[in-house]
Amino acid sequence: MEAEKKNQRHGLIIINTGNGKGKTTAALGTAFRALGQGFKVAMVQFIKGGWRYGELNAAEKFENFFIEPMGHGFLKLGDENPDPADCELAERTWRRCAELILSDQYDLVVCDEVNYALSYRLLPVEMVIDTLKRKPPRVHVILTGRDAPAELVELADLVTEMREIKHPFQKGIKAQRGIEF
Amino acid sequence: MEAEKKNQRHGLIIINTGNGKGKTTAALGTAFRALGQGFKVAMVQFIKGGWRYGELNAAEKFENFFIEPMGHGFLKLGDENPDPADCELAERTWRRCAELILSDQYDLVVCDEVNYALSYRLLPVEMVIDTLKRKPPRVHVILTGRDAPAELVELADLVTEMREIKHPFQKGIKAQRGIEF
Repeated sequence: MEAEKKNQRHGLIIINTGNGKGKTTAALGTAFRALGQGFKVAMVQFIKGGWRYGELNAAEKFENFFIEPMGHGFLKLGDENPDPADCELAERTWRRCAELILSDQYDLVVCDEVNYALSYRLLPVEMVIDTLKRKPPRVHVILTGRDAPAELVELADLVTEMREIKHPFQKGIKAQRGIEF
Repeated sequence: MEAEKKNQRHGLIIINTGNGKGKTTAALGTAFRALGQGFKVAMVQFIKGGWRYGELNAAEKFENFFIEPMGHGFLKLGDENPDPADCELAERTWRRCAELILSDQYDLVVCDEVNYALSYRLLPVEMVIDTLKRKPPRVHVILTGRDAPAELVELADLVTEMREIKHPFQKGIKAQRGIEF
């Protein structure tokens, strides 16, 4: 039975990308589903404010949900030459992700908005790929954020693009508490 | 303060559609975020098995989360002339959604996989649109499932298409407990 279970368990590398809503929200849904199955889940947040009151409050209901908000606002984005302090923070945040992934203590590790750090070149994609290639087989990893690099998509098992078809801002509606944050 | 709150509250009609993963999962994430904000959430399930052990177990942690699994397997799909028993079940399930939405007792009502019933013509889209047009202003509604009809997209405030870029089945990997169900 144990052997069978081990054979069936294949830790997935999952990417939620695209310009639409639902990348972090689907990761949150997967985290809750995993917690409901008795899994241990860790979540590292690259961007300040990515997870707010609603999520954090719900997450507190689960003792096996470890959340580490590492990110704060980055200084200089969208430039050929990012600020070294931003790169240092992004790399430090990935090192923490790597530690949690390689520890084999969690069933699922969510690296929330890591693609953001990658697409702004704050973090070398090789660093992420190196960790993922050494990942314990049973560990599932979710990487979220728009503009997932091609090398990461190549390595992943499950990649979904969330495309924005229609957004409430287009109708002049403000972000809604409890739904969007 | 109350007046200000009422002015700010604009119940959104949200659609998660497309052929990819994450439609129901993002709705689940939104439900947990809303619960974390103290909202009351109802979820009606059109398809049996759409929400399984992981979600249901996690949902039990929240006393304000009401889940009603109405659907069971439909008899005859993908045909010009669906089975009347299937239509009757789909319509009964929508009437329950309408009751919950119009009751004004919930902040968020998730109609999980309703688009599935619509795209297989088990349910007339007019029935759904009629309810949504009469929805209390503060109530948020999420409609999930692939192939959301154009009339529904037209009416919605927030529409996201989840596109499958890569799926583990392509690598011969079986569905993973705690992640995909």
